[in-house]
Amino acid sequence: MTKLVKKIALLTSGGDAPGMNAAIRSATLTAHDYEVIGYKHGFNGLLDQDCIVLNDADVRHIIHQGGTILKSARCPAFSEVQSSKIAAENLSKNQIDALIVIGGDGSFRGACHLAQYWSGQIIGIPGTIDNDVDGTDHTIGFYTAMETALDATDKIRDTADAFERIFIVEVMGRHSGFLATSIGIACGAEQIICPELHAPEHFDLQTITQHVESTRARRGKSSYIIVMSENSYPDGAVALAHLLSEQIGIDCRACVLGHIQRGGSPVASDRILATKLGAAAVEAIASGKSKLMIGESQGAIACIPLDQASTHQKTVDTTLLKLQQHVFDHQG
Amino acid sequence: MTKLVKKIALLTSGGDAPGMNAAIRSATLTAHDYEVIGYKHGFNGLLDQDCIVLNDADVRHIIHQGGTILKSARCPAFSEVQSSKIAAENLSKNQIDALIVIGGDGSFRGACHLAQYWSGQIIGIPGTIDNDVDGTDHTIGFYTAMETALDATDKIRDTADAFERIFIVEVMGRHSGFLATSIGIACGAEQIICPELHAPEHFDLQTITQHVESTRARRGKSSYIIVMSENSYPDGAVALAHLLSEQIGIDCRACVLGHIQRGGSPVASDRILATKLGAAAVEAIASGKSKLMIGESQGAIACIPLDQASTHQKTVDTTLLKLQQHVFDHQG
Amino acid sequence: MTKLVKKIALLTSGGDAPGMNAAIRSATLTAHDYEVIGYKHGFNGLLDQDCIVLNDADVRHIIHQGGTILKSARCPAFSEVQSSKIAAENLSKNQIDALIVIGGDGSFRGACHLAQYWSGQIIGIPGTIDNDVDGTDHTIGFYTAMETALDATDKIRDTADAFERIFIVEVMGRHSGFLATSIGIACGAEQIICPELHAPEHFDLQTITQHVESTRARRGKSSYIIVMSENSYPDGAVALAHLLSEQIGIDCRACVLGHIQRGGSPVASDRILATKLGAAAVEAIASGKSKLMIGESQGAIACIPLDQASTHQKTVDTTLLKLQQHVFDHQG
Amino acid sequence: MTKLVKKIALLTSGGDAPGMNAAIRSATLTAHDYEVIGYKHGFNGLLDQDCIVLNDADVRHIIHQGGTILKSARCPAFSEVQSSKIAAENLSKNQIDALIVIGGDGSFRGACHLAQYWSGQIIGIPGTIDNDVDGTDHTIGFYTAMETALDATDKIRDTADAFERIFIVEVMGRHSGFLATSIGIACGAEQIICPELHAPEHFDLQTITQHVESTRARRGKSSYIIVMSENSYPDGAVALAHLLSEQIGIDCRACVLGHIQRGGSPVASDRILATKLGAAAVEAIASGKSKLMIGESQGAIACIPLDQASTHQKTVDTTLLKLQQHVFDHQG
Repeated sequence: MTKLVKKIALLTSGGDAPGMNAAIRSATLTAHDYEVIGYKHGFNGLLDQDCIVLNDADVRHIIHQGGTILKSARCPAFSEVQSSKIAAENLSKNQIDALIVIGGDGSFRGACHLAQYWSGQIIGIPGTIDNDVDGTDHTIGFYTAMETALDATDKIRDTADAFERIFIVEVMGRHSGFLATSIGIACGAEQIICPELHAPEHFDLQTITQHVESTRARRGKSSYIIVMSENSYPDGAVALAHLLSEQIGIDCRACVLGHIQRGGSPVASDRILATKLGAAAVEAIASGKSKLMIGESQGAIACIPLDQASTHQKTVDTTLLKLQQHVFDHQG
Repeated sequence: MTKLVKKIALLTSGGDAPGMNAAIRSATLTAHDYEVIGYKHGFNGLLDQDCIVLNDADVRHIIHQGGTILKSARCPAFSEVQSSKIAAENLSKNQIDALIVIGGDGSFRGACHLAQYWSGQIIGIPGTIDNDVDGTDHTIGFYTAMETALDATDKIRDTADAFERIFIVEVMGRHSGFLATSIGIACGAEQIICPELHAPEHFDLQTITQHVESTRARRGKSSYIIVMSENSYPDGAVALAHLLSEQIGIDCRACVLGHIQRGGSPVASDRILATKLGAAAVEAIASGKSKLMIGESQGAIACIPLDQASTHQKTVDTTLLKLQQHVFDHQG
Repeated sequence: MTKLVKKIALLTSGGDAPGMNAAIRSATLTAHDYEVIGYKHGFNGLLDQDCIVLNDADVRHIIHQGGTILKSARCPAFSEVQSSKIAAENLSKNQIDALIVIGGDGSFRGACHLAQYWSGQIIGIPGTIDNDVDGTDHTIGFYTAMETALDATDKIRDTADAFERIFIVEVMGRHSGFLATSIGIACGAEQIICPELHAPEHFDLQTITQHVESTRARRGKSSYIIVMSENSYPDGAVALAHLLSEQIGIDCRACVLGHIQRGGSPVASDRILATKLGAAAVEAIASGKSKLMIGESQGAIACIPLDQASTHQKTVDTTLLKLQQHVFDHQG
Repeated sequence: MTKLVKKIALLTSGGDAPGMNAAIRSATLTAHDYEVIGYKHGFNGLLDQDCIVLNDADVRHIIHQGGTILKSARCPAFSEVQSSKIAAENLSKNQIDALIVIGGDGSFRGACHLAQYWSGQIIGIPGTIDNDVDGTDHTIGFYTAMETALDATDKIRDTADAFERIFIVEVMGRHSGFLATSIGIACGAEQIICPELHAPEHFDLQTITQHVESTRARRGKSSYIIVMSENSYPDGAVALAHLLSEQIGIDCRACVLGHIQRGGSPVASDRILATKLGAAAVEAIASGKSKLMIGESQGAIACIPLDQASTHQKTVDTTLLKLQQHVFDHQG
């Protein structure tokens, strides 16, 4: 018996990011000539055959919801040949013609691995709060995480001002400084610590200490905020705060923002980006493309090979880093 | 007696936009080789010699503040020759070397007018929630207004859902649909009304009505949201809601978001954009440029002649408008 | 055949209020010895037999959601004898033992009417953003509406400051000034207009005008905010702003906050109140009570007869009104 | 020479709390028959003679600001006799007639100590996010901290749901569970850990573990949130999460909300409470009272002796704790 309608499958994988639901919605609504299937818990759903049919009504009111209705998970087993073969078989059994993977570079590596054993079309959509994916100016979730972390840092500025205190705010970003740089500039931080500026293996406490001391010497006691990306200092912000307190003899506090950066209703920019990319992914499938990641670059939809997206990481614009130093070095 | 330090003056003009303070801060902090003067109440300050010195300490903690510490105003008198001459004389008396005008196209027209009578450097920075300025992808304030309006529209969706009601949400935008389009996509609106889609002079109630009716016929009673930009329908959203209620026999409500869209702490994207543009404006002055507007296009600082920025208005990307129709026509 | 488990029915009626879902959740989870039924669209659900079973899983993650999963509606037909009789019959057919009505005084009048024809237990829970229900210090939804309106008014203050402008902010409240008074005090409004201070039929424009003028005379040009409750001035805030502009010759703007005040995720105070009242309503049913409204007064659960809750309206604490005058008359 | 106008001094002390500025504003504006002086950095300002005059214009637009314009600090030296004597002398030198101390129980102990050496009037206003002060239903700052923490916890629920993960959210509260209990109920937490329920010295990991396991056994994999107050588990939430992960073999994460709970614009309830208490404190001074703390109890202004406020701590209402157990034990 012939299958008349083609089937698209969707999954969300890796760290969840606000806007993943908006991408699921957009892909589902624009895939009106297809049957749409959602696999649960990332690649695990492919292994366990854990999936649901996605109809228009299922996605009508999810554009504003954080998290992902398809759930996410990491799936270490998926790097093994055996797992990818099982997944490929299950996709074939389910007569899936194309798979959309929403996630970060790790998820795209999984997708590339799967592509060796499955002949269906595979399209990636970049969804991660870290923004460290090549081939797209922004990843889904980055804008929201940036606002959430900024909102928290503004609050910390209030209490830092009240006590004229030094605070280290640790933000996410895995191994890149997109969040730290953006939040640092936006909150008017006195200092930013991120891998692009401070290689963790050559962490230079003295430079940091000197900046604190010279700033306080110049403008007197006042609040001083360091925005630091996770993994910049091996032992984390709490340990760095202790060390800094000892070195300069002034009470220094740490605040690790943590998982609050992953959740929350996506901001408009993430919802719009996700809506664009979800629709573009379906369009790419309709025109027969595969093994691509669909991103947005310079205001237009852009495609890059999925294996490029999974192997090269984007790095922070040096202009931004220079800007922060330029502005902050002269703020009195 | 020779003036040893050059003087830069700043003013904010026209409708206030969140992020104007971040631009004032960035320009002031990076203009460390200059004396910085702030004129109050837009161009009125030039006429009244109403100005203050801006030091680092004055701008240290304003990056997160809505409004503008320099106040803003419209200044209709400024289109007259006499006013521009007085302003030019006052600037000369104050030994101002360069003037940075933060505002929209109307403010840039004022600046161009002034340029006919004053030989100092003039640089414009686009600050308006309407995003309708040529030569920059985004204007300062647009991102924040978009989030504020989206937040309000999400709340209206809640009550619309509870009552399965039709709502018309009127957003700002002057004569362009940037806010309406973005918010419409981001809130999952069932319909968008904006000048680019519905010329006010050919307003077609029937098309709008038919979409409401066919949607409800297809998916049963449910909430239905129309995001409408101001000036799309000559008599406003409240009148349109009355008319629509009569035509389709279903209670339809209007919500005019109004000035809440202007205020509030700027979101990260606006603070970062404003910080970039403030620094770039000072850099442009340092390198001797004049009669330019400094914007950001495709991720890089961009300059266009100020008279172009004041005469051409940017229009909404048609891809976005098509996207909304594509997604919304198939959402069941 | 004997019914072994007793059945509780729930409905939400009248204007929706944030926290209604939290009350539904609390009642459902604590009614573990009962079967729980939810009627849809307020009293209409009783007439149409439109209901669903509510299990724990249905309410697990709704505590943070605005609106009401049971939908709400006004039901004018319900004041007729015939409707109440049909509703009573339908409740009996469905073997409902007790009905919890979440709503305002209008909803409680409906419940009292129903009580004449149905012998089951009826318990009311006060849910309305207006806070005008007797027998409880706060109604579910008031706290959230207050914060939403305050957030909007803070934003308006930003733009009012930038332009040194006069704004009239119209908030909800039906015929009482709880929202206007609270928001007025919390935003530092220069003037509050509410029914308790200005009887609509003796609306005194001159007093209002004089206060604007004397304030500006005393402290110079500066922003001036009037928080006005709906129905205070017969033609609404927009008309009043026009009139005021004419009288004092200064541009005065209006902002009608409207339905944004109904939506949004409930704040903690509303979620906690709703959780308390939902649990207390089930407890009241378990102990055989009926025709009561369950509220909270002075920190403890309180009950009053449902017909009292439906006939007497609570009024704003005069201390608060005096406080605002005391503070505001001396703010320079 | 006779002093004609009496002088009131204000200071904010201890952990800063949102709404302290609203209290400063209210006291300053209503003290129109007095000269008002603000001491900086808590009791340190008394020792260093570090103070400013507070005029109406200084406090006009601070009602919405987090932190405290008078700065805060802890002042361990103030428990020594010598310090209190110096402070008393300085107050006399400055001809201060009355002192308003805004802070928590530690600050009130300082004030009581000072009262032994200074004969002026002393009035306390309870300002702390912990809500652990006797004689008032709520302290200034508690409402805002509760909303901030709830907002963060809602975001954590999103990511916990996406991964069906266990999270421990550590909130502030010093040695009391007001924040933990309120947030736990409001976010629908599966478990609350606070001193009132789990004495730190008898911390019972097994009960906690069993609840996690039985809940997951009953309702399958799903997110599970523990709200824990600081100091409940000696080594903190991060250590507890590690321990729990080991015990139950499921990945458990911790999020320590930290100082974001102190900052931010105060919510309406805190602004209103602060406005009431600031005005009432001035009124108490006018009527000759001293050594009192002014709070609000059951909707009315209430006074208790300052030494009682500084020695007895309020404890969490057991009804609330029972409610959470009642609701949560039956949520499936």
